Amino acid sequence: MFDSANLDHHISKDRFRREEPKLRTALLEAQVRLGQAKRFPVLILVGGVEGAGKGETVNLLNEWMDPRYIQTTAFGLPNEEEDSRPAMWRYWQALPPKGRFGIFFGGWHTQTLVDRVFKAESKSRFETEIAAIQRFERMLTDEGVLLIKCWFHLSKRQQKKRLEALESDKKTRWRVGTEEWRYFNASDRFNQVSEHLIRATSTGEAPWVIVPGADPNYRALLTGRTILARVNERLDQKAVSAPAVKPTPRPADVDGLNVIRALELDQVYDKATYEKELEKWQGRLNLLSRHKRFKNLAVVTVFEGNDAAGKGGAIRRITQSLDARFYRGVAIAAPTEEERAQPYLWRFWRHLPRKGRFTIFDRSWYGRVLVERVEGFCSEADWMRAYSEINDFEAQLISHDTVVVKYWLAISKEEQLRRFKLREATSFKQWKITDEDWRNRKKWEAYETAVCDMVERTSTEIAPWTLVEANNKYFARIKVLKTLVKAVEERLAKG
Amino acid sequence: MFDSANLDHHISKDRFRREEPKLRTALLEAQVRLGQAKRFPVLILVGGVEGAGKGETVNLLNEWMDPRYIQTTAFGLPNEEEDSRPAMWRYWQALPPKGRFGIFFGGWHTQTLVDRVFKAESKSRFETEIAAIQRFERMLTDEGVLLIKCWFHLSKRQQKKRLEALESDKKTRWRVGTEEWRYFNASDRFNQVSEHLIRATSTGEAPWVIVPGADPNYRALLTGRTILARVNERLDQKAVSAPAVKPTPRPADVDGLNVIRALELDQVYDKATYEKELEKWQGRLNLLSRHKRFKNLAVVTVFEGNDAAGKGGAIRRITQSLDARFYRGVAIAAPTEEERAQPYLWRFWRHLPRKGRFTIFDRSWYGRVLVERVEGFCSEADWMRAYSEINDFEAQLISHDTVVVKYWLAISKEEQLRRFKLREATSFKQWKITDEDWRNRKKWEAYETAVCDMVERTSTEIAPWTLVEANNKYFARIKVLKTLVKAVEERLAKG
Repeated sequence: MFDSANLDHHISKDRFRREEPKLRTALLEAQVRLGQAKRFPVLILVGGVEGAGKGETVNLLNEWMDPRYIQTTAFGLPNEEEDSRPAMWRYWQALPPKGRFGIFFGGWHTQTLVDRVFKAESKSRFETEIAAIQRFERMLTDEGVLLIKCWFHLSKRQQKKRLEALESDKKTRWRVGTEEWRYFNASDRFNQVSEHLIRATSTGEAPWVIVPGADPNYRALLTGRTILARVNERLDQKAVSAPAVKPTPRPADVDGLNVIRALELDQVYDKATYEKELEKWQGRLNLLSRHKRFKNLAVVTVFEGNDAAGKGGAIRRITQSLDARFYRGVAIAAPTEEERAQPYLWRFWRHLPRKGRFTIFDRSWYGRVLVERVEGFCSEADWMRAYSEINDFEAQLISHDTVVVKYWLAISKEEQLRRFKLREATSFKQWKITDEDWRNRKKWEAYETAVCDMVERTSTEIAPWTLVEANNKYFARIKVLKTLVKAVEERLAKG
Repeated sequence: MFDSANLDHHISKDRFRREEPKLRTALLEAQVRLGQAKRFPVLILVGGVEGAGKGETVNLLNEWMDPRYIQTTAFGLPNEEEDSRPAMWRYWQALPPKGRFGIFFGGWHTQTLVDRVFKAESKSRFETEIAAIQRFERMLTDEGVLLIKCWFHLSKRQQKKRLEALESDKKTRWRVGTEEWRYFNASDRFNQVSEHLIRATSTGEAPWVIVPGADPNYRALLTGRTILARVNERLDQKAVSAPAVKPTPRPADVDGLNVIRALELDQVYDKATYEKELEKWQGRLNLLSRHKRFKNLAVVTVFEGNDAAGKGGAIRRITQSLDARFYRGVAIAAPTEEERAQPYLWRFWRHLPRKGRFTIFDRSWYGRVLVERVEGFCSEADWMRAYSEINDFEAQLISHDTVVVKYWLAISKEEQLRRFKLREATSFKQWKITDEDWRNRKKWEAYETAVCDMVERTSTEIAPWTLVEANNKYFARIKVLKTLVKAVEERLAKG
């Protein structure tokens, strides 16, 4: 895989002087076109061997193009803020929006590689991480990101030559210490592991380009031309829509029975019991939030449900028992322009709690498989792949000690009508009912199908859905609180 | 994920009697359309819980449709023939061709699941196998296979009811033994692991359908309708060609240096040395093939190279030293009609050696990224994804104790001309030179680029390419033999 990169590639100074201005102009033009079209972002990953010119090339790219429209991010060891979130959080934060370039200096491959080379991480664990990288990159390219991955390589001989040259010069001697020679001594192993990683993560949509790093002119021209070719090619492409994928028939199609219709929506639950239980569960929740080991956990709750099912009321019963400094409520409406310029899950990643905190989502990432699906706001292919992207997302939260609790609040069609009318008749509730609510109501069956599909595909052993019978608000609120308390208690019990 | 399947779905006998004939007719019609269009094969995977009606449903499908055009294969524990090949070999053998249905009763998921549930296979190992399944299924769907995956489920309560019913009837009591109850006792764990597997391998192109198995009428209608809908939907679809993916610029584009041009093709090597060395290496190869531990290995060699580079001669120097019972030569030409009806790699899987044997491929699976790419016989998207498919394929061979040795025999353009002319002038060699050879020669540069890309992307730490300087036939043949001997010796040394 490094066969070509091990050759002594070279571009003379003269030739470089002739070629550089042309390349530079062409890159600038491409950057302008990209910014005007705003159809997709370009993300350049820069990885590889120490001393192979990664930093120099990143600087050069910023010099060649307009740096105001390039977001360059260097990733070292995660800082405390980053460590308090799932590992991929910091990459999500740094993604460039449509129309812009992003350069990641070091990226999600680095840690995987370093762990395997220097920390003797097991082969299976390495493979598991590779699979996660594959899924993440596929999600990015499916979302339209143009992903250009450059691997800067030096042969062992070239590495040695470089270190010796640095050592023999008084001005650069300080740059070579035991650490550098330690890296050098591990270079066979490093190359072997990187080769595996590169092979496994080179796909048709996002192949790695191996950049021989010994000759500065050569590596600069190669990187620049690679980026230019990929960006222009994509700009020239007509937008291709994915072939439509139809959902397969669901159980409801055969006998009319489904998880929603199987619910006993009208639960009997009187006010006196409610008040007693409310005090009990709110008290337990408050205690939990102040538990000494709670600082090692985060909690994410998701509220979805029919319009007027009582999501707001249920959420208030949770927040009443929490210290305002320790939770955040996030209401999800239509995405902003900034959010539309990013991959779908971006706007949820940005709201993730750090450890010791609650985040309560009033509507959520499930919008894609509910309203966006039913209203045709995204293509079938988009919402079909969203199920596994969401499952991946939640799995990352959970493996980062986050408790994920998801509620679907269900009311009957009749109860909804009663509540809509009540809202219209009550002056201080009129704002809560809009034409859109009445329009959604007409698509009751389509929403029901979407909800059943969602539960079928995303109610997992690690993040199950809780279906809440909500015709009786008292019953619903207590079920919500109790479920949350039990989920956190179980997680704390695991240590 | 099993939420809906845990409900008590039911279809009455009357309703089934009304619906079955309609469904049956529609399925038969779809089968005929599929057979006429011959555009894609349909592969139905049947998996799930014991006693959930898998066998009955497979029988029913064979009864409903024309069984002559359905290949049904049940996979149990691998037999000795199968065990002697990489694990996926038996599934490749059983793939249906375009225009046909295949039903796999048990499939590549089963072993992964069983190992994790009953053999306490580690979580990472489980994840690694899931990633391999994801890649394999993606390859199948990329190759056009319509993959329909049905998971037959029973809730724990339903399983218990079934076992008790069988036990209480004298005629069926024998069907319930300690094994059955052992399975039942593991069912929580079984469900948890299957849920994980289903979640991870449910993709937009090939989602799992959960079939509640308790009611025979319900499960039959659901399965039948699912298959009908998927097949008809695909038949109605216009063939969508994948968006073109352009290869990124390669090193040769920048400074003209590449792994082929860097070769010193004219090696000096006299006949006397050749004959001495030939005897030596052929002798060693012969000894190796009779080594007592060789029966645990298989060897696959791949010969690619310029036209007239001497592949045939080099191959003969290998086969001369082997017992004819222990090797097979496979010359790869244009695919047959049968082969074109299958995924690309199918025709190579069928020729894989069992342990203790050599298979020598004269041209190979690399045709896709060489001749098919250069001549435009496949789309860019097809050959771009072929690199990783090939790497996956070879990784499977190697993990099944196969030594993979790949040669590119390189001659100069001048040497080729000399050999072409010699062939035309020599009566017994004239058959070896055709108009096609002259045509290929005109695309020398395009082939060179394709070869460099191939080496860059598929010369891996586990299956490296050996580039053979072949202007001097003596030198080339000895290098080929020596490389093979050393590769086998190294593998034997590892034990």
